[in-house]
Amino acid sequence: MTSRYSYTPPFAPRGRAGVAPTPPWHYAADFLTIAFEASQEAVAAVLPKGLDADAEDGRVLCTASFAAWQACTDEGDEFLDPSRSQYSECLIFVGARLGDEAVFHCPYIYVDSDLSMVRGWLLGYPKKFGNVHTTRAFNLQSPAAPALGPEGRFGGTLALHSRRLAEGTVSIEHEAEPDAPIFGSRPIIGRRHFASLYEGEQGAPAIDELTRLRGENFQISQIWEGAATLDFNESPTEDLDLLGPVKVLRGYRYSVAMSNRYNIRVENLRASA
Amino acid sequence: MTSRYSYTPPFAPRGRAGVAPTPPWHYAADFLTIAFEASQEAVAAVLPKGLDADAEDGRVLCTASFAAWQACTDEGDEFLDPSRSQYSECLIFVGARLGDEAVFHCPYIYVDSDLSMVRGWLLGYPKKFGNVHTTRAFNLQSPAAPALGPEGRFGGTLALHSRRLAEGTVSIEHEAEPDAPIFGSRPIIGRRHFASLYEGEQGAPAIDELTRLRGENFQISQIWEGAATLDFNESPTEDLDLLGPVKVLRGYRYSVAMSNRYNIRVENLRASA
Amino acid sequence: MTSRYSYTPPFAPRGRAGVAPTPPWHYAADFLTIAFEASQEAVAAVLPKGLDADAEDGRVLCTASFAAWQACTDEGDEFLDPSRSQYSECLIFVGARLGDEAVFHCPYIYVDSDLSMVRGWLLGYPKKFGNVHTTRAFNLQSPAAPALGPEGRFGGTLALHSRRLAEGTVSIEHEAEPDAPIFGSRPIIGRRHFASLYEGEQGAPAIDELTRLRGENFQISQIWEGAATLDFNESPTEDLDLLGPVKVLRGYRYSVAMSNRYNIRVENLRASA
Amino acid sequence: MTSRYSYTPPFAPRGRAGVAPTPPWHYAADFLTIAFEASQEAVAAVLPKGLDADAEDGRVLCTASFAAWQACTDEGDEFLDPSRSQYSECLIFVGARLGDEAVFHCPYIYVDSDLSMVRGWLLGYPKKFGNVHTTRAFNLQSPAAPALGPEGRFGGTLALHSRRLAEGTVSIEHEAEPDAPIFGSRPIIGRRHFASLYEGEQGAPAIDELTRLRGENFQISQIWEGAATLDFNESPTEDLDLLGPVKVLRGYRYSVAMSNRYNIRVENLRASA
Repeated sequence: MTSRYSYTPPFAPRGRAGVAPTPPWHYAADFLTIAFEASQEAVAAVLPKGLDADAEDGRVLCTASFAAWQACTDEGDEFLDPSRSQYSECLIFVGARLGDEAVFHCPYIYVDSDLSMVRGWLLGYPKKFGNVHTTRAFNLQSPAAPALGPEGRFGGTLALHSRRLAEGTVSIEHEAEPDAPIFGSRPIIGRRHFASLYEGEQGAPAIDELTRLRGENFQISQIWEGAATLDFNESPTEDLDLLGPVKVLRGYRYSVAMSNRYNIRVENLRASA
Repeated sequence: MTSRYSYTPPFAPRGRAGVAPTPPWHYAADFLTIAFEASQEAVAAVLPKGLDADAEDGRVLCTASFAAWQACTDEGDEFLDPSRSQYSECLIFVGARLGDEAVFHCPYIYVDSDLSMVRGWLLGYPKKFGNVHTTRAFNLQSPAAPALGPEGRFGGTLALHSRRLAEGTVSIEHEAEPDAPIFGSRPIIGRRHFASLYEGEQGAPAIDELTRLRGENFQISQIWEGAATLDFNESPTEDLDLLGPVKVLRGYRYSVAMSNRYNIRVENLRASA
Repeated sequence: MTSRYSYTPPFAPRGRAGVAPTPPWHYAADFLTIAFEASQEAVAAVLPKGLDADAEDGRVLCTASFAAWQACTDEGDEFLDPSRSQYSECLIFVGARLGDEAVFHCPYIYVDSDLSMVRGWLLGYPKKFGNVHTTRAFNLQSPAAPALGPEGRFGGTLALHSRRLAEGTVSIEHEAEPDAPIFGSRPIIGRRHFASLYEGEQGAPAIDELTRLRGENFQISQIWEGAATLDFNESPTEDLDLLGPVKVLRGYRYSVAMSNRYNIRVENLRASA
Repeated sequence: MTSRYSYTPPFAPRGRAGVAPTPPWHYAADFLTIAFEASQEAVAAVLPKGLDADAEDGRVLCTASFAAWQACTDEGDEFLDPSRSQYSECLIFVGARLGDEAVFHCPYIYVDSDLSMVRGWLLGYPKKFGNVHTTRAFNLQSPAAPALGPEGRFGGTLALHSRRLAEGTVSIEHEAEPDAPIFGSRPIIGRRHFASLYEGEQGAPAIDELTRLRGENFQISQIWEGAATLDFNESPTEDLDLLGPVKVLRGYRYSVAMSNRYNIRVENLRASA
C-alpha cells in the first residue's frame, strides 16, 4: 500500500482507490477571473484568526474565478479518462494580510469532483459541491465561438442545490498589465480544519491551522482583460451575497498550469486559541 | 408567439420556453474522431430502407466521435450562459450509399442536453442521453495538458445509465491528409421518425423519412492525426458492440464550426413501405 | 426488429436500444399535488387551438405536481435496474374545456429521463429536462421522516439549468374528499407537435394534433390533504411565473399506479389551420 | 458563528454555509442489504491496525447495502428542500473483531452528496462519490411497483465514474429472523484519517484513529428476507471485486431511522505506529 493512491482513504489492496492521490499534483485550467471590491467588514467576517482584511478606504480587493481544470499525477495518464481528471470550480479570493504580506484567502469555493474536494480540504480550501460552467473558446470564427481576444465575451456561472449563486461575464478589450489580480498573483493562505466528533470536544476542531499553499512550475498564457459583470444571488445556505460586490472591477481570461508538492505550515490556530 | 423559441413545445407566452429554438443554429466543437471498420452485415443491420452499406471486401468505413459542443442562435448570447449552450456528444457514423453517392448515416448518438436531443430528433439523429467526456488541450506545457500536436494524447468516453459503453484514444503523430474521414467529410443522411400512439397504428410511424442534413459555413481547424484505440462494451440495452470494431484505423483531433438552416427531403419511407 | 424496443429510434439489431419501448407502459408514482388558481388570461395564453380556459369569475383551477415515478413494460423487470426505470417529474396542469367537457391540459412539464421525455413527446406532453425532488416518507417515526398522515410535511422543488423554478409544500391535516383535483381527476388533452425542418416549411409543424391520453388500471392510495404553499420563480427561459399562482389552494400527497396502451385522436390542428 | 452550521468549513457570517452541520444528525433510510462471504485474506487486506478479520473456516460475513437516505438536524425542516437532505449510498461492511467483540468495519462506501461525504469523513467512513439507485415500493399493486412482502423483487446498483461497480437483487420470501446481519446488527468501528500536506510529513497522517460510531434512537421496520444476487465488477480504480463475493447469502429489505450525537474514541493509530 505504498502506491500513489494510498495517501487518503479508502485504503484498498491494489493501492488505487484512495479518493485523492499522493502529491505531486499537476494541473491545467482555463480561468475567467473577475476582480471586485468588498467592504472591509464583509471580508473581516470571513477571515480566520491570523489574517486581517487588506483594506484601503474600507474596501478590499477580491476575485471570483470560474475555472475548468484538468489534473493528473506523475503517472500522467489520467487525462485519458477525462471524467476522472476534469472538474469545474468557482473560487472566491479575498485580499488579506498575514503580518506585512499581502495574500489571498479563499473563504468559499465550489467544485464538482470528489477528488478535488478532498484534496482541497487537505490543502486548506473549504470546498463544497457546486455546478460551475464557463464559456469555451474554439480557435474558429463562429457565432458559437467567442474570440479569445478583443471583442470575445465569456461567462461563468455557479449553482448550488439547483440555485444560481453567482454569474459573471467578461468582454475582452486588450491584453492585461502584468500586475492583474489573477490566480497566482498573491500567495494563498488556507485554513486546514477538521472537526472533532467526540463527546464534549465538538466545539474545538481536531485540526485547525493556517497553511501556505505552494505552487510550482507556474505557467500562464496570454492574459486578456476587459469590462466585467458579477452578481451574487441570495441563497438559504450561502453568504456570497454579503461580499457584494460593492464594485465590480475588471475581468480576465487566461490559462494556467502548475503543480503542488506540499504546503508550508503557518500557524496552529488551536495552539493560539 | 413568433419568437425564436416558438418552434418546438412548450409554447409559452413570452416565446422563450421551447426546448429547441427556430433555426438557424450555429455550432462550434472540439472533435476526437476514430475511424474504424465494421462488417458489411453489421452496418446493413443498422441502415434504414433506401441506404446500402458502402462496403469494400465486406468491410465498411465507420467513425466514432467524441465532441464537446457550444451552440447558439442568431441572438448569439447563449454561450454566456454555458449550461444552456454547451453539451457533449458521442456520434457513430457508418458508411452508406444513397444510390451512387457515398454518405454517412448515424445509427447511434448520445448527448447530455435536452435542447440537443430534441433538435437531433427533428434533424434525423436518433439521440439518447449519455455521458460523454473528452480530454482538453490548454496551450500550456504541463503534465496535465496534452500538446495539441505531435505526442499529444487524447481520450474520449461514453457512458449510458452508468455503464461505460465506448472508450477511444488518439496519440497524435502529424497533420492529417485532406481526405481524412472526419466530421463533415461526407453528406449525412438522417432518418426522421416519430411513432404513432393511436390504437392499431403503433406498428406504423406517423413520420418516417430519409433526410439530408445540410451544414453551412463549415469551418475546420488544423486536423491532427495519429494512432488510435477504440473499444465498444456490451450493454443490456445498446448494440454498439455489434459494430466491432473489426479493425481500428486512425484517429483525428480537430475543431469545427458550422450552421444549420434547413434539411433537404430525400424520401418518405412510409410512402415506400 | 419487432421487439419491445423497436418502437422508437435508435433501431438496433437486438431490438433493445429504442429510447422508449412499445406500449403498454406501466407506472407507479408518489405524488405531491398543489392546487392553485391562475387568471383566465394566463391560462388562455398557454392553451392550443381547440381548448378554452375553464374559468369561473376569471380564474382557472390549475395544479402543480411533483412526482417520483417508477415505470416498466410488460417485461416487468426494468425496476431491478432503477436508473433506467425511475425518474422525477414536475407537471403543471391547467383547467380547460374541450367543448362541454372539463379537462386538464399540460403546458409545462419537466423530467430527468430521456425515456420519459421521448415517451412524453409522443404522448403529447411538452417535456423538457429539469431537476425535481420530493420529500420521502419512511413508515418510521423520526425527525428525518415526516408522517404520511396528519402533521406530516412534504416539499417539492423544480430546477432548470441550475435555477430554482418552482417550490411547494404541503402540511397534511386529514384525508381528502373524493373530488380532490389530483392527478387523474380529469381527462388530459395533450398536443402532439413535431416541427418541420425543410426549407419554407419551418413555420408549419409536420404533426400538430390534440390527443386524449388514456390511462388504464388506474389505482390510487389514500389521499392526504392539507395547507399548501407554492411559488414560481422568474427565469430567463420559462414562463411558469405568468401562472401566478393567483391563489394557492390545498395540497395533496398520494400514490398512483396506471398503464398507458394508446391515445385517442381528438383533432388535427394542421387541418383546422 | 455558533450556529448549527459552524461545525465545518466554510465558516460564513450567517452561520449556515458549513458543508456538514453540528450534530445531532437524524436519519431515515430504505435499505437493501445483501449478506455475502469474503475470504479471510481479502478482508484482512482492507482492515486497519487494531481490527482482525472475524473469520470462520477462512470466510468472513460481509454485507453490501444500497440505501436511500433522508437526513436533517434538530431544526428538522431540511427534508422540505429534498435536494439538500436526500442522498443515496452503497455501504460495504466486513466482519471484524476488536479484541473479543464482533464488529463491522466499512472499507468502501459511495454516496452522492457533499454533506454526507464530509460528515462521513469526520465519522470515520471513507466516502467517495458514486451513483447509487434502488428499487422503490409504492403500496399499490402494479407491474411497476414490487410488493413490499413475499414475491417483491428489489435491486440496487452502484456506479463510479460511469462504470457499474456493483449490482444486487433480493427476491422477498418471508420476514427475517431477529439475528439478520442488517445495518445496525453489529457495532461499527470506523477509521478517521486525515493526511498531512507538509514537506516530509506526507507519509504519516495528521489524524489516524479507530473510532466507534454510536447510533441513538435506532428504529427499524419489518425486515423482509429472500434469495439474493450480488456482483462486483472490475474497475481501474476500485477493489470491490477482491471481496468476491465468495458466496452470496441472503438479502434483506427494511427501513431504519437513527440519530448520531458523537463517536467514541477507540485507539490512536498514530500513537501505536
